[in-house]
Amino acid sequence: MPKISRRAQEMPASPIRKLIPYSIEAKKRGTKVYHLNIGQPDIETPETALNALKNIDLKVLEYSLSEGNLEYRTALNNYYHSLGFNDLTTDNFIVTNGGSEALNFAISTLCDAGDEIIIPEPYYANYNGFTAAYNVKVVAIPSTIDTGFALPPIEDFEKKITDKTRAIIICNPGNPTGYLYTREELQKLAEIALKHDIVVISDEVYREYVYDGKQQVSMLEFPELAENCIIIDSESKRYSMCGVRIGFMVTRSKKIHDAAMLFAQARLSPVLIGQIIAAAAHQNDHAYIQSVREEYTKRRNLLVDLLNGIPGVICPKPKGAFYCVAELPVDDTDKFAQWLLETYSHDNETIMVAPMGGFYSNPELGKKQVRMAYVLNETDLKRSVELLHNALIQYNSVK
Amino acid sequence: MPKISRRAQEMPASPIRKLIPYSIEAKKRGTKVYHLNIGQPDIETPETALNALKNIDLKVLEYSLSEGNLEYRTALNNYYHSLGFNDLTTDNFIVTNGGSEALNFAISTLCDAGDEIIIPEPYYANYNGFTAAYNVKVVAIPSTIDTGFALPPIEDFEKKITDKTRAIIICNPGNPTGYLYTREELQKLAEIALKHDIVVISDEVYREYVYDGKQQVSMLEFPELAENCIIIDSESKRYSMCGVRIGFMVTRSKKIHDAAMLFAQARLSPVLIGQIIAAAAHQNDHAYIQSVREEYTKRRNLLVDLLNGIPGVICPKPKGAFYCVAELPVDDTDKFAQWLLETYSHDNETIMVAPMGGFYSNPELGKKQVRMAYVLNETDLKRSVELLHNALIQYNSVK
Repeated sequence: MPKISRRAQEMPASPIRKLIPYSIEAKKRGTKVYHLNIGQPDIETPETALNALKNIDLKVLEYSLSEGNLEYRTALNNYYHSLGFNDLTTDNFIVTNGGSEALNFAISTLCDAGDEIIIPEPYYANYNGFTAAYNVKVVAIPSTIDTGFALPPIEDFEKKITDKTRAIIICNPGNPTGYLYTREELQKLAEIALKHDIVVISDEVYREYVYDGKQQVSMLEFPELAENCIIIDSESKRYSMCGVRIGFMVTRSKKIHDAAMLFAQARLSPVLIGQIIAAAAHQNDHAYIQSVREEYTKRRNLLVDLLNGIPGVICPKPKGAFYCVAELPVDDTDKFAQWLLETYSHDNETIMVAPMGGFYSNPELGKKQVRMAYVLNETDLKRSVELLHNALIQYNSVK
Repeated sequence: MPKISRRAQEMPASPIRKLIPYSIEAKKRGTKVYHLNIGQPDIETPETALNALKNIDLKVLEYSLSEGNLEYRTALNNYYHSLGFNDLTTDNFIVTNGGSEALNFAISTLCDAGDEIIIPEPYYANYNGFTAAYNVKVVAIPSTIDTGFALPPIEDFEKKITDKTRAIIICNPGNPTGYLYTREELQKLAEIALKHDIVVISDEVYREYVYDGKQQVSMLEFPELAENCIIIDSESKRYSMCGVRIGFMVTRSKKIHDAAMLFAQARLSPVLIGQIIAAAAHQNDHAYIQSVREEYTKRRNLLVDLLNGIPGVICPKPKGAFYCVAELPVDDTDKFAQWLLETYSHDNETIMVAPMGGFYSNPELGKKQVRMAYVLNETDLKRSVELLHNALIQYNSVK
């Protein structure tokens, strides 16, 4: 049999995906599975977007430009102007197949094999995948659940910088922790990045979903970082259109933009139909975003309060995005999450959660934690916590 | 300014894309540009597919499975059974963002930095991009226009195999040459691949578009190659839906499939809507394919005959796909193609062609050649050749 590449051998299996066969088996047995494991909201895609889909009247579904069609980049440019970044033009955007491809382009544009990227952990598990594909090393900055995943002093980032460091990735607000960076923290990050001439890759796909009256500060608010900043953005979470696969990268750096375009050209074109749908969603979306934000606020409050009511469970309140990280009174959440699908059920129902091991550079650190996405309605969330509570009692008595 | 990666520095700019700014300028001046430079057919997408698009009635446009939804993989499995590959199941397919991503997965699954892939040249220019992104080296097997791009004896492939060789990529029928491999050639390739335990990556996206009553032989027809073969396929050209971004890889090897799935999981999901549209196209597509094949046959005959009628132009007749390669009586087709857009026009019209340099490992080899895609109707093709003829006279008298 032919050899598989080392890069494939080093690719981590997605911590969420490896449970999928067990959830399929559970469903085959007739068990209803509540999915708190993945950021797939049940929220409806905006009506303007769904109408745009129905009204597509093309005879040939042809390639778009590699950087994305001008119509859609104009919609993006207007959106970023509405955020206050009036210096941007349509030339600052590259449309991608989801935020995933934007991350992929950012990493491949900046890093060679053996280079390093600094990332506060726990972090979005797929950062491991995109770095491994290019033999790039993740250098983690630890944060822990007992301080609500507060960052260590930003100065600590500087201690990890070596001559191999090419970038710092932050996710703001953060998946999985919901952490929201302060302006002061970002200012310090910008200073460090400039001092060492490295790039801040700021993943801001949850920008709109920040709670308690707070507002996200974008890394674009630091114009001094023009040559040293890439924003990762996506319509997937903003408009609950994950399957449309439209993301994009934004940079003021012509050098980075032009280099990333080489990768964009090699894959020819992002999705035509998704650009049409997403452009429509950007018209007139204020009311939509506001109502979805209110819905997520209610869900977050409900879920976090209920979780903290279970003996032995600790769950800090996230400030943004739509995930929370909870510590459970079990030894190994990989085993527990599998047991939930394979063995447990109550009235023919169970829940699926994401074990946190894959969200750390060292999986041991996440062994007692799970990520839950509050992407289900309140009734389903209540039932999910009830199931979790009941399951924990049963799991710990069986053991 | 921060450093750009070596992999980005080594990415070749697409030979087609670097002319785009000149074509945009020409259009701004009011000049009509006939696009023979890119494989974007003017053929209509099948009506069943366009109707399926209009009838999508989802409220949430959600992620599909990383490997593609079961409904679509079932349609693909049925299609491959209709080709005679009855041993395949839905587990042999991974749905991708265009054939581009399938190639990307194949290369990253098999190759590390410094590894080699053997490819007969001239070859699809983006093979250079996908290999450069992973620091993989292309080892070219030359074929030349004066023999109609006939392959050297297949045994010659073996001479290029080293301990770094991981795969051979063929495109059958070929872009840009229209070359169609014989069963005997493929049989020999299979033997060589097995002997050295390397993989044949067979790009068969133009499978249906083969002319003169001939039929393409798929690499899947060699069951002995089960562990050593990846098929790259796409709906883009088959159904003139390039912008839908749906391709897929097919392999009988569980080892390769499982490794490629790690890359598929990292980017979460292929496009949901494209899968729905493409599945619809596969129902009942016999008449569509046949009428499109007839149309391409007429266009090929017309274009190639007219081109060979221009003094100094040589254009072998392609057996498949929808491109031809022509040698022109000019010194440098990069300059000529740019001149066509920048300087030339006749009755406010000009043409855009793809210089062949980027289709060779050594661009010098393609310096007198261009690729033309017969993706325009017969009237436009006639006018395009008229423009080319007129332009050549003017270009050579000006010089």
